[in-house]
Amino acid sequence: MNFKAHVIAEFLKGTIEGDPEVEVHDVSRIEEGRTGTLSFLSNPKYEKYIYNSKSSIFIVSRDFKPKNKLKATLIRVENAYESFATLLALYEQNKPKKSGISSLSSIDQTASLGENIYVGDFSVISPGASIGNHVMIYPQVYVGDQVTIGDGTILYPGVKIYHNCKIGKNCVLHAGVVIGADGFGFAPDAENNFKKVPQVGSVIIEDEVEIGANTTIDRATIGFTIIRKGVKLDNLIMVAHNVEIGENTVIAGQSGIAGSTKIGKDCLLGGQVGLIGHLKIADGVKIAAQSGLSKDVREEGQVLQGSPAFDFTTYQKCYLLFRKLPELRNQINQLEREIKTLNTKFGK
Amino acid sequence: MNFKAHVIAEFLKGTIEGDPEVEVHDVSRIEEGRTGTLSFLSNPKYEKYIYNSKSSIFIVSRDFKPKNKLKATLIRVENAYESFATLLALYEQNKPKKSGISSLSSIDQTASLGENIYVGDFSVISPGASIGNHVMIYPQVYVGDQVTIGDGTILYPGVKIYHNCKIGKNCVLHAGVVIGADGFGFAPDAENNFKKVPQVGSVIIEDEVEIGANTTIDRATIGFTIIRKGVKLDNLIMVAHNVEIGENTVIAGQSGIAGSTKIGKDCLLGGQVGLIGHLKIADGVKIAAQSGLSKDVREEGQVLQGSPAFDFTTYQKCYLLFRKLPELRNQINQLEREIKTLNTKFGK
Amino acid sequence: MNFKAHVIAEFLKGTIEGDPEVEVHDVSRIEEGRTGTLSFLSNPKYEKYIYNSKSSIFIVSRDFKPKNKLKATLIRVENAYESFATLLALYEQNKPKKSGISSLSSIDQTASLGENIYVGDFSVISPGASIGNHVMIYPQVYVGDQVTIGDGTILYPGVKIYHNCKIGKNCVLHAGVVIGADGFGFAPDAENNFKKVPQVGSVIIEDEVEIGANTTIDRATIGFTIIRKGVKLDNLIMVAHNVEIGENTVIAGQSGIAGSTKIGKDCLLGGQVGLIGHLKIADGVKIAAQSGLSKDVREEGQVLQGSPAFDFTTYQKCYLLFRKLPELRNQINQLEREIKTLNTKFGK
Repeated sequence: MNFKAHVIAEFLKGTIEGDPEVEVHDVSRIEEGRTGTLSFLSNPKYEKYIYNSKSSIFIVSRDFKPKNKLKATLIRVENAYESFATLLALYEQNKPKKSGISSLSSIDQTASLGENIYVGDFSVISPGASIGNHVMIYPQVYVGDQVTIGDGTILYPGVKIYHNCKIGKNCVLHAGVVIGADGFGFAPDAENNFKKVPQVGSVIIEDEVEIGANTTIDRATIGFTIIRKGVKLDNLIMVAHNVEIGENTVIAGQSGIAGSTKIGKDCLLGGQVGLIGHLKIADGVKIAAQSGLSKDVREEGQVLQGSPAFDFTTYQKCYLLFRKLPELRNQINQLEREIKTLNTKFGK
Repeated sequence: MNFKAHVIAEFLKGTIEGDPEVEVHDVSRIEEGRTGTLSFLSNPKYEKYIYNSKSSIFIVSRDFKPKNKLKATLIRVENAYESFATLLALYEQNKPKKSGISSLSSIDQTASLGENIYVGDFSVISPGASIGNHVMIYPQVYVGDQVTIGDGTILYPGVKIYHNCKIGKNCVLHAGVVIGADGFGFAPDAENNFKKVPQVGSVIIEDEVEIGANTTIDRATIGFTIIRKGVKLDNLIMVAHNVEIGENTVIAGQSGIAGSTKIGKDCLLGGQVGLIGHLKIADGVKIAAQSGLSKDVREEGQVLQGSPAFDFTTYQKCYLLFRKLPELRNQINQLEREIKTLNTKFGK
Repeated sequence: MNFKAHVIAEFLKGTIEGDPEVEVHDVSRIEEGRTGTLSFLSNPKYEKYIYNSKSSIFIVSRDFKPKNKLKATLIRVENAYESFATLLALYEQNKPKKSGISSLSSIDQTASLGENIYVGDFSVISPGASIGNHVMIYPQVYVGDQVTIGDGTILYPGVKIYHNCKIGKNCVLHAGVVIGADGFGFAPDAENNFKKVPQVGSVIIEDEVEIGANTTIDRATIGFTIIRKGVKLDNLIMVAHNVEIGENTVIAGQSGIAGSTKIGKDCLLGGQVGLIGHLKIADGVKIAAQSGLSKDVREEGQVLQGSPAFDFTTYQKCYLLFRKLPELRNQINQLEREIKTLNTKFGK
């Protein structure tokens, strides 16, 4: 399938610079551009590649000013990354999709199945489960008793969902995700052994949530662990019991949120961040990678770093001085010597 | 099923304050209390909710002094959390349980099976494996050659146990747990390529151990990786080859323990803690979240923080000063200026 | 099977000290040595055990000088650990191997299968997949559409490989590994909701790569995520989209590499290390455990520590002073007092 630059520009509501008739049949990364492919430039770090890339079309932002002349056709748009994503989505939608219910799956008679669903080999749908329309369940998935899966949701191979959990519409759960395992709750008994606190709650995942490979979300002790609409979780994240994550919050890989912590809307957590339990984080808060949060964050939009974390800009200043501690120490010792000299000179 | 306050109080050996005849049919979290439910108050952070909660009964500690008058019935006990857990356990025990051996599982003829076991769809029990009485094996579990599973143990969906590993009695392994994968051992050869060191040992997990979702415990190079009785491991933890974890030690999510390290009894590791290999940690040691341990800990009961970790209280003081480094630097510069003035005034 | 010391010494091209006729039938760790077993001594930390160990033979390095007399037979070699590994490899090779294609697996007719392969129960091989010779696919593995698996590769139980990914020869993927899940790419739309950026690339894993349990390697947005020949990844590592890891680089458990970062050859990353996206790391770089990298590393062989990371030796010095911050603060306060005294004495 070939597309001409002017067709793409029209679709993206972009403006053309260069030959509107040039054709592409594939996409490529800017640094690996080949003739006949389309690339995009969004991150300025990659601008250097545009001058040697062989891609035939580049999607760039409206205000991009090339430092050298470019042979390729440019399509200028408001947001190059978003427009490129739109094209990829179109490309994906036209791919053939898996369909049908495998005779090698195990579906309980009491489960309710929507229209036009896919169930792969060796997947299990347990008693009382309810599967929405157009749901795709890849092989080796486990859907526990009374679990609900909303319309259009995709469960990739090996996803495991424990009993009673609810997954919303148009969610994507990647391979190895575990939803609804027991929260980590133990109470010491008289002999100081730990006795398990039964975890009788469950998990609610709202619509449009994406969850990365091997991420785990534990069920609540009582009540619900809740992942709100539009949340995006990367791989290998741990969400403990009774946590709540607000709408459209994005969390990068390997972060962990301890029990009962509530994160607001539109927050952004870097990779390997840790939050202790029972915290409350305001909306729009940003936490730098590898930081650890041990206190509530009440002010919206705060940016934090450190372990424990505090204001990002202050952290940067402190860390800069941390790196200069040997110099600071020398400076202090020098002052000490000078004062000693002064004291000697003038007696005490 | 309804229960009256005085019946619950009697069962918990607690004392009643308020109407002993009030009835509940469910449990709820204190901040989400509804009429007809029972809640508990243990963490003082949640006390504020008790004054507006609609729960009909609260389990509280003997020394709890409400600041305002409460309508609900109080049941006073020694340890509110433990008593509540006891009630939940009772509730869990009365739930119907999975049973029977699925015709869609694959069980080798040479495996030995205990009484009253459950084996779910698409699970594999390999040659020579030995499954104790009352064991529950959910769907899609892999039990390797010669593996032993003790009485009453639960393997949730997708657990994978490699050959020769031994799991004790009354253990709980959550979905995605991997026991007995090869330890990470490579030796550089003459051309500086890494040659695999075969991992011919295995894993021993003693009784009453609980292991969270997607946690991995590697087999020993030679000998055993050992998880002692009563150990509780949270999700996404990594335990490397030849590690030993002492009785009743509790480790929070995403912590990692490198090869051959021995952790004592009754230790407590926060989340995202890392221990390098070949360490020895005394009994009762506590390590704060995100800390990294690079040295033996010989003194029992030490509390540590930092990366590398040292005494917790000292760390707190140091970190407080880290946060004040810009002020300290200003103070130093001010002193420098004053000394310069003094020096100028009085010559050198 | 018994082996005499002189046979082992000959095989390893080592020299014998002590009785060349002594026999062993098993291996043991030096600290758990039993009569009739062979142990090795490589890490000096373990030397103390050799004097009481009951092992009959020890493999030691040529320059090892025992402090006390030893009864056991010593076999001296260039590299004790490597020689021991060679023996273990021999031992492993002679073990019986799984073989045959299970009738309980699901193999698409359009998949191409090599000679002498093993496919376990409930594994799925999807349309267009290509499996090399001598490949071992344990139970419950998912091999997606058009996936290629090279000769001699082992996929342990529950490995999931998404469509179009390519795995090289003689690789080992441990249980729960996920290859080719979607990269974490989202672009905010006009209403500030996140819209998924389709991930249309895939993953290339070259020959001789080993990947630990539950590690995840995401597919590229466009192009490829690439793991070069001989790379060794430990458990629970996250490799994001479009990352490239150079030949023979070794990464310890729970480390994470964000999108589009390129790591050179022969690098060594400790456990729980984090790298932000779009970085370039030179060959032979070493990064201490729990460090975070936020900048390119251009100089080959650099050793780094910290979060963010900088030169290792400097970090060690800075951290030492961090631990002495309370003393430094006292020193500064003392100087301040002395200057105040001097100022008072001599006016301003």
